[in-house]
Amino acid sequence: MTSAPSSKVATPPVAENFLLPAGLADGLPPEAGFEAAMVERLMASFARWGYERVKPPLLEFEDSLLAGPGEAMAAHTFRLMDPVSQRMMGLRADMTPQVGRIAASRLRKMPRPLRLSYAGQVLRVKGEQMRLQRQLGQVGVELIGAEGAAADAEVLLLPVEALRELGAPDVAVDINVPRLAPIILADLPPEARMELIAALDRKDTARVSERAGRHKETLLGLLRSVGPVETALPALLALKLPAAGEIERANLAETVALVRKAAPDLTLTIDATDQRGFEYHSGLAFTLLGRGVRGEFGRGGRYVNHAGEAATGFSLYLDTLLATLPVPARPKRVFVPFGAAADIGMTLRREGWVTVQGLSAVADARLEAKRLLCSHVLEGGRPVAVDG
Amino acid sequence: MTSAPSSKVATPPVAENFLLPAGLADGLPPEAGFEAAMVERLMASFARWGYERVKPPLLEFEDSLLAGPGEAMAAHTFRLMDPVSQRMMGLRADMTPQVGRIAASRLRKMPRPLRLSYAGQVLRVKGEQMRLQRQLGQVGVELIGAEGAAADAEVLLLPVEALRELGAPDVAVDINVPRLAPIILADLPPEARMELIAALDRKDTARVSERAGRHKETLLGLLRSVGPVETALPALLALKLPAAGEIERANLAETVALVRKAAPDLTLTIDATDQRGFEYHSGLAFTLLGRGVRGEFGRGGRYVNHAGEAATGFSLYLDTLLATLPVPARPKRVFVPFGAAADIGMTLRREGWVTVQGLSAVADARLEAKRLLCSHVLEGGRPVAVDG
Repeated sequence: MTSAPSSKVATPPVAENFLLPAGLADGLPPEAGFEAAMVERLMASFARWGYERVKPPLLEFEDSLLAGPGEAMAAHTFRLMDPVSQRMMGLRADMTPQVGRIAASRLRKMPRPLRLSYAGQVLRVKGEQMRLQRQLGQVGVELIGAEGAAADAEVLLLPVEALRELGAPDVAVDINVPRLAPIILADLPPEARMELIAALDRKDTARVSERAGRHKETLLGLLRSVGPVETALPALLALKLPAAGEIERANLAETVALVRKAAPDLTLTIDATDQRGFEYHSGLAFTLLGRGVRGEFGRGGRYVNHAGEAATGFSLYLDTLLATLPVPARPKRVFVPFGAAADIGMTLRREGWVTVQGLSAVADARLEAKRLLCSHVLEGGRPVAVDG
Repeated sequence: MTSAPSSKVATPPVAENFLLPAGLADGLPPEAGFEAAMVERLMASFARWGYERVKPPLLEFEDSLLAGPGEAMAAHTFRLMDPVSQRMMGLRADMTPQVGRIAASRLRKMPRPLRLSYAGQVLRVKGEQMRLQRQLGQVGVELIGAEGAAADAEVLLLPVEALRELGAPDVAVDINVPRLAPIILADLPPEARMELIAALDRKDTARVSERAGRHKETLLGLLRSVGPVETALPALLALKLPAAGEIERANLAETVALVRKAAPDLTLTIDATDQRGFEYHSGLAFTLLGRGVRGEFGRGGRYVNHAGEAATGFSLYLDTLLATLPVPARPKRVFVPFGAAADIGMTLRREGWVTVQGLSAVADARLEAKRLLCSHVLEGGRPVAVDG
């Protein structure tokens, strides 16, 4: 009546049919379950800080999806035609702009600051060098309608607490001020400014010395200041900056002070020259790292959303977390032989057991339990370890 | 320094930018969080029965996505070009075929029966009359490599237990045997058979009487038997059926007996004439209903997967559940005024509180707490009810 028609699966049909497109993959047990559990634990952490979940759709009209901060993802976004409206839609490559849209539309009357969280899948047309996947799980928060260091500090501390609760090893934060270099170089023609910003970004001291002109000392100061907050902040504070730069720096110093007070043991570095991936950021930004972890857990920072509101937030990508944290062992499973009393399964499940029901009579229940990867077998009405 | 830049949001930009395509919607607080919690509770129920989670990608090559049981969804599936492979991909409209593919490929060496669960979003080109949404949350299981009544009964009982654990009202199951009518009418030319099956499906007794010829008594018997299992099963057992029909009926009777033993109080009906939505089913199928609930919670049944393996499973769609179950009230939230000791927030969160931090000094913390929808405010180091 049952089971294992292994003769059928021994010769599976042409494997080509089962190939997935590059950068797309199946999540398998136990990783897929672990990933989902991680997402819910992160979302629970965010909820404890008052962040409430929103769930934007996977598809939107192109012009709303790629408006404002969404523009940065235009080249990465799959497009398709909506047969209903005959308009182009995009398959989201980033949930952040969607959350901004929700805040500015359906939640525009909610009191500010507005705290929203989100979790979902995003898709990208092509993989990146450091991240080949084209489908990623994204989890994060947005804090909308709040400026200043207390908001910046909250959005930096929240993922640190959440990652620590998840058991991520030695979380570290690298703080960036992507607006600082453009402010310092505001008086240069755009091309010269771009070139210097790129040289700073790749820490090209020689190029910076050669091209910075009257900004040489300041830019070399930025480069020298890169490092642990304890040395980086005094070095930055010693630099002469234009007035707008002083405001950025003061906010940085205030944020660092708030973060230090709340998390005295957190590894904090500053890199005021880093620009990569912060194209739409308008203030303090940061990267979440783990000691000995390849890649980053996520990043965040301040920007201005669709509706012109001050906003800050962060996104975590689950691939790094999944590669870092140990997957828990399969839970204890008890094999319930075919013909056992109808209510025994429910009783065991209520006691916290995972039950695997036999679907036909077998000669050796213990052997069948092992074959089905069960740690226990029901004998005499109780679970007994199969290797006991 | 902070907050509520309400002057900015009072005049949001052109609303047209924020319109979503028909059938696509934003999930908002608190529903979005409730939906996610429901999914995880359902998945936890499935896990207690030994079902392990898989996570297929949102996109696949068209020819694998629409192979085998996936063919039924071909007309509902968005297509897009993969710029990497230059091949067409489909955006999944149903996760069931994907789980079948995983079982037949990466998990082909896992012992059978193989129990897999899944949860995710699916997209459809057009909405249906009864279900206008084009993005749906789908949750379900597949039991692969097991034939017979015990497998059919397990896959019917599992969602009943899971829905009951979720608090769904009076779950009822309508059992269908979509292969029975085609078996009875196997000797007719295809067109005549199709016409009679369609007439049965819409319970058109007159048409059936007129056209059924020598099958008239059997078909009218099927129509008369529709109803509670206690009367329907004896009525079906009294019919004269071809041999293949007797096998279907015996399996139905055996399944009903197993279900009755495990769930004596479950409302069970049989409709052996129903065909809708069971196009690819090859054995016992069923619909999950709730008393007084519009629409269905989900459906399931037996089919043959890509690799020719016997499989059965069910899918729940979250829209009906969301419309049925009461959304829990917002949890207790405590407002922590700006400047409170740095560790008080973490302490409160560990105690189970939701904390909402003040980001700047306010004149009246209690008023600010109310404005931010907090039930409590931190006063003298402890949460105090704001309406207390």
